[in-house]
Amino acid sequence: MQSYWMLMTDTDTVLERRDVPVPVPGPRQLLVRMHAAGLNRGEFLLTHGLHGAPGTWKAIGGEGAGEVAAVGAEVTGFRPGDRVMGRCAGAFADYTLMEAPETMIVPDGLAWEDAASIPLVFLVTFDMLVLQGRLRAGEWLLVNGVSSGVGVASLQLGKALGARVIGTSGSAAKLEALASLGLDVALRTRAPDFAQAVMGATDGHGADLVVNTVGGSMFAENLRAMAFEGRLATVGHVDGVMHADLDLGTLHAKRLTVFGVSNKLRTKEQRAAAIPRFVAEVLPLIEDQSLRPIVDRVFPLEEAEAAYALVESDATFGKVILSA
Amino acid sequence: MQSYWMLMTDTDTVLERRDVPVPVPGPRQLLVRMHAAGLNRGEFLLTHGLHGAPGTWKAIGGEGAGEVAAVGAEVTGFRPGDRVMGRCAGAFADYTLMEAPETMIVPDGLAWEDAASIPLVFLVTFDMLVLQGRLRAGEWLLVNGVSSGVGVASLQLGKALGARVIGTSGSAAKLEALASLGLDVALRTRAPDFAQAVMGATDGHGADLVVNTVGGSMFAENLRAMAFEGRLATVGHVDGVMHADLDLGTLHAKRLTVFGVSNKLRTKEQRAAAIPRFVAEVLPLIEDQSLRPIVDRVFPLEEAEAAYALVESDATFGKVILSA
Repeated sequence: MQSYWMLMTDTDTVLERRDVPVPVPGPRQLLVRMHAAGLNRGEFLLTHGLHGAPGTWKAIGGEGAGEVAAVGAEVTGFRPGDRVMGRCAGAFADYTLMEAPETMIVPDGLAWEDAASIPLVFLVTFDMLVLQGRLRAGEWLLVNGVSSGVGVASLQLGKALGARVIGTSGSAAKLEALASLGLDVALRTRAPDFAQAVMGATDGHGADLVVNTVGGSMFAENLRAMAFEGRLATVGHVDGVMHADLDLGTLHAKRLTVFGVSNKLRTKEQRAAAIPRFVAEVLPLIEDQSLRPIVDRVFPLEEAEAAYALVESDATFGKVILSA
Repeated sequence: MQSYWMLMTDTDTVLERRDVPVPVPGPRQLLVRMHAAGLNRGEFLLTHGLHGAPGTWKAIGGEGAGEVAAVGAEVTGFRPGDRVMGRCAGAFADYTLMEAPETMIVPDGLAWEDAASIPLVFLVTFDMLVLQGRLRAGEWLLVNGVSSGVGVASLQLGKALGARVIGTSGSAAKLEALASLGLDVALRTRAPDFAQAVMGATDGHGADLVVNTVGGSMFAENLRAMAFEGRLATVGHVDGVMHADLDLGTLHAKRLTVFGVSNKLRTKEQRAAAIPRFVAEVLPLIEDQSLRPIVDRVFPLEEAEAAYALVESDATFGKVILSA
């Protein structure tokens, strides 16, 4: 038996530590002794009843890092004692299961807390910027809501890949803090002449790739701010505007692409297929420290509720981590 | 000197045959003795004053086929006498220039009239379905406005590539005619339960790729009819609805991609880059006749005005060709 944080999804949401059996790995799974787990806003929606059936308990914690304790019968490439990081269903526990094809070896010298902050947000960001967004060195990346988790990761990965980055935020203080991460151009999210400002900052070229974490309210301005053959990734809607006005004339004339991102719904096979490219293209950037995970605060595993309260406060800059 | 059809773009549009010098090929150009030229609705917008500066003359005819008469100093791979087909600026003439990197050898046995109907519509369609749309054998392709030029080419190329095709049209007669080209499922364009009908026809899977030649009025229904990770190409707006309602919730949840297509605005380099793949993947389908160009009617070059009138009437099924 081990203790495990479970979430009751109901109108009265409850986060509770319960005793459950240590799981047994399936043929392609790893049993991992957890050292650190990352918190994400996505699972946080659970507490607002947006995911999961009411009245059911659900293990939470979607990513973490730890030591391999046992491997399934068909697993190759991992053995007990390996330091690993990856996605999982239930990271806030002493032991959890990871799918071997979606798990990575932790780079030498990387702390557990840093490793736990990588798998989810950087894999989503890599998929969005590189696999789907085809970002190339020298291009202009525009990040709407650059101070969010995915926003900061987009800025970091974009810069590490050689892009020039324009970021928007409602907070001047956050924009100032992001200058230290290499933000080239800072704009207020709802600047009245937004598209014109982007065009000006890019010498009339426009944004080659837009990451929109804000939602539908930014869409029309984003299209006007885009370069010929630009791509727009829509990844959130914190503004609550779920419908966007799509100007087909602009879409045709500039040959624009718009795509929706949600890592949750990718298949296991698709997620696994992205891992080798992530290992080859992103882990070296972490190893040579051109890309550094940003951890805002580490809580002990027992204080999961306080950690979630901090995430909910929106006062963080970087990841919140639970440490075993 | 040669005679050449030129268009006066003005409120009083005039299509007129004028005497102009035979052009001299630049270093990477071919001088082509034209045998046949294709008519396209795109250039037809000229006559409505939508393209081109008023009061200026412009050579028209965007594609054709003929014999190489002379080659530029840097041209390799072509020599005088070769049968070629390709894009050009001014196909309705005795001689025209083609860019060598955008020009293809006509497959053996293909008539001039058939060859002249290929370059523009099939290159746009190939770019849309394959290079951008990533259509795979066994997938469901939904073509809105399947009886249009791009619509019929999408049906033909989709079937030749092994896709299953659902087509919509406002005309029951046209839908019936398209059954002979392999249309799997025919739907009326504004059927009240459109998305449900597509879901039913695909056993609940939805359309993997949508070609929307109709415009903004079909957008919301199209999104509902799409499969997980579906792609939507928006390529026209004959309905005049230039703004579409984009439901971000659906875009995120199904990880959809929407992209705008307009071949005119591609760079010369991008068009040239598509040629080797077109030659390798599409020309063999034309050679083995699994893909056959559809020519509605051939006019002599002298009757360009009558040919345009036929295109404008929207009564055609397949291409209208001018023959020298």
